[in-house]
Amino acid sequence: MAELTHFDAEGHAHMVDVSGKPVSDRVAVAEAFVKMQPATLAHITEGTAKKGDVLGVARLAGIMGAKKTADLIPLCHPLPVTKVTLDITPDDALPGVRIVATVKTCGQTGVEMEALTAVSVAALTVYDMLKAVEKGMEISGIRLLRKEGGKSGTYEAE
Amino acid sequence: MAELTHFDAEGHAHMVDVSGKPVSDRVAVAEAFVKMQPATLAHITEGTAKKGDVLGVARLAGIMGAKKTADLIPLCHPLPVTKVTLDITPDDALPGVRIVATVKTCGQTGVEMEALTAVSVAALTVYDMLKAVEKGMEISGIRLLRKEGGKSGTYEAE
Amino acid sequence: MAELTHFDAEGHAHMVDVSGKPVSDRVAVAEAFVKMQPATLAHITEGTAKKGDVLGVARLAGIMGAKKTADLIPLCHPLPVTKVTLDITPDDALPGVRIVATVKTCGQTGVEMEALTAVSVAALTVYDMLKAVEKGMEISGIRLLRKEGGKSGTYEAE
Amino acid sequence: MAELTHFDAEGHAHMVDVSGKPVSDRVAVAEAFVKMQPATLAHITEGTAKKGDVLGVARLAGIMGAKKTADLIPLCHPLPVTKVTLDITPDDALPGVRIVATVKTCGQTGVEMEALTAVSVAALTVYDMLKAVEKGMEISGIRLLRKEGGKSGTYEAE
Amino acid sequence: MAELTHFDAEGHAHMVDVSGKPVSDRVAVAEAFVKMQPATLAHITEGTAKKGDVLGVARLAGIMGAKKTADLIPLCHPLPVTKVTLDITPDDALPGVRIVATVKTCGQTGVEMEALTAVSVAALTVYDMLKAVEKGMEISGIRLLRKEGGKSGTYEAE
Amino acid sequence: MAELTHFDAEGHAHMVDVSGKPVSDRVAVAEAFVKMQPATLAHITEGTAKKGDVLGVARLAGIMGAKKTADLIPLCHPLPVTKVTLDITPDDALPGVRIVATVKTCGQTGVEMEALTAVSVAALTVYDMLKAVEKGMEISGIRLLRKEGGKSGTYEAE
Repeated sequence: MAELTHFDAEGHAHMVDVSGKPVSDRVAVAEAFVKMQPATLAHITEGTAKKGDVLGVARLAGIMGAKKTADLIPLCHPLPVTKVTLDITPDDALPGVRIVATVKTCGQTGVEMEALTAVSVAALTVYDMLKAVEKGMEISGIRLLRKEGGKSGTYEAE
Repeated sequence: MAELTHFDAEGHAHMVDVSGKPVSDRVAVAEAFVKMQPATLAHITEGTAKKGDVLGVARLAGIMGAKKTADLIPLCHPLPVTKVTLDITPDDALPGVRIVATVKTCGQTGVEMEALTAVSVAALTVYDMLKAVEKGMEISGIRLLRKEGGKSGTYEAE
Repeated sequence: MAELTHFDAEGHAHMVDVSGKPVSDRVAVAEAFVKMQPATLAHITEGTAKKGDVLGVARLAGIMGAKKTADLIPLCHPLPVTKVTLDITPDDALPGVRIVATVKTCGQTGVEMEALTAVSVAALTVYDMLKAVEKGMEISGIRLLRKEGGKSGTYEAE
Repeated sequence: MAELTHFDAEGHAHMVDVSGKPVSDRVAVAEAFVKMQPATLAHITEGTAKKGDVLGVARLAGIMGAKKTADLIPLCHPLPVTKVTLDITPDDALPGVRIVATVKTCGQTGVEMEALTAVSVAALTVYDMLKAVEKGMEISGIRLLRKEGGKSGTYEAE
Repeated sequence: MAELTHFDAEGHAHMVDVSGKPVSDRVAVAEAFVKMQPATLAHITEGTAKKGDVLGVARLAGIMGAKKTADLIPLCHPLPVTKVTLDITPDDALPGVRIVATVKTCGQTGVEMEALTAVSVAALTVYDMLKAVEKGMEISGIRLLRKEGGKSGTYEAE
Repeated sequence: MAELTHFDAEGHAHMVDVSGKPVSDRVAVAEAFVKMQPATLAHITEGTAKKGDVLGVARLAGIMGAKKTADLIPLCHPLPVTKVTLDITPDDALPGVRIVATVKTCGQTGVEMEALTAVSVAALTVYDMLKAVEKGMEISGIRLLRKEGGKSGTYEAE
């Protein structure tokens, strides 16, 4: 069975030694959804104009959240990200919003957790902004879409 | 249409004034799931013993995450939580883990965001601990199960 | 000569004891300006529409900055703010933007530093957003406009 | 009209991709003033001896503030600074204090925001230390004096 | 055997529920020592004048450290401290310095961890300031001297 | 007398310029002890099984504490650590626990403070977890065991 790298031989959690790994360019793309009632979604789609820019706030929260990843995830290596973008788009079919984060760095470990944290914090912020009108929203489908760089190379979600 | 309380009349984001609201006891319970392959789940269920306590690390991350909520969610009021518990249980039927967080405070605003942040950070930590064996895990079903206290009273998810 | 309350009798810095002070409602209003070239200001006034919402980003940064005050100012007491609003308005006569923050709490110390920190962080963010087009912008006029509450009562700037 | 780099083509805020930029030595120098009554300034100039070292506290706050820049400014890239110094000098002619911060790093983006944040936090701390004797102090003249490094080369304020 | 309150009946870590505890005034006093060579101590005792105020920097670090306690100690409740003082005195007999922190709050849990964190961070800062001249310094004797308030009442170290 | 590098020629604290120093591999190992009653230690040694994993929580706190070093120690350079491990072992002879942290980075400054901070935060967490059963525990023997890398080369405690 494959080893869990975050534990040593005795089963103790540690921040794994990456000092011997080569520095390489890293990209990770993650995705999340927030499902809501059509009437709730209307607050977003009409919001950019006059009533308040829900997606603009969520986008910033996601970007800032990516910078806090190593504070939040206990065994995550701190690393200076070199790019963070969030695309948040309303989707009438869901209904709700789709959030995609792309994070880059040049380092010894990947930025999967940064991208996943970015979409999660953006999704939580969408919930926070809209919870006065609907408490039953659900955040789902948080997953890694793609990663590049590092020893394990490129990963692409099916 | 109901108002989004996080925006003023001009559509500008603000941290809404709660200074006139009465202080009351607040509870919020939130839920999340991490779906994975059965072989990945086996790392968790066998882990508590010798190979490393994945759920113990995630539980702590969730508790600490709840304390960082106002740092992560831009318009969230800071408030001192008086209780945070995380129940994380493996579920063979999923397969994966179910995470439930319960947060309490006594204050002028609720702790829904604290509970939702706790389960999200715990779920991200589960992903981080296990991503060496499976990158395709998915975090889903993040929602509020229940809240008590405050003007709007008790909410119970269907 | 009046005493500096942040130092003890020996001249050592301390976080002064407020435990005996009564809890009261507190408000503080602070102001700042960012002076820039007319062409730079045009980026803001045209921005809300298509080119990017500079003031929306600065507003959020100011709100989040208010929450970090006790982290930044060494002898500042931590306290949970109950309201933070930022009004940021373009001013062709300056030319530039005027930033006003209003902060409330109910506690044993005032929120003057929270309001001043909010306008400072918002002003720094305006600078950051526009520095690609003008490095010579200047932040000025950071001052307390008004405070209410506490033993010293109401203060109003001349 | 020049582009605002912090927004994409659709006007959405993002942390701009610097992964393709060369690593170079960076220096930034920023300035701020705190204007006050002569009697208030006397607390500082006499303070270093017995009554408390206002400038020493402000200097440390500025240094620590520089390290928090990426936490405060939403779209700022995190980067490890390699030098931070603050020179804070009383100026009887103002009357008040002049604050100058010098920050260095070796990286893909500049440290202008770090230097500006350092002087701002130091100035706010001076205000906090002295507000018991004068609430009417004003922070002004926050600007970039000089920067070196990066594609745009050296900038020197007029 | 007495229960460890930080674990539930199943042995899972949690932030214990204090919502039912009465609010009371709390004080905690903690102590630490940094042992060093006489020549190292001389840097401190001569320092306040011209060579740099080691103890002033350590004092501030301890005060700011107290405010970060709930960030550092996983199961610690966040609470707004109302007083933090650090007394740091050179001791030729040790030789070294003695650090005493006093922390107050009015709340549902005590501030023992805040006082212990304050002396620890101050001691680490003394080490940091002096490590260029002596790496063999030792921090010892970190303990709680006294606590007041709460159900368990007053504790006094022997 | 050797210079204190954290002060300039005028005795002002600064974050010393390391931009000219070569990047090299760095390791630091630090140690701490928590002394307690045998009955208190029994809670730990029996805990891993059913009653709660005190050492597991302390280990995580130490790892996360290492990442916060530059936030806590005012003049410490921020640097991305590449490895953090904590070995925490019960010692019946003490009685109590021994904590050893090993930290690595590749950079321009050492990680001594990161290793010392890690053992300190882990020790404080042990205290926090057990203080319900014994308030008289003492943290002692915090010292640097070994460092490698940098101009000053290897240091080994006697």
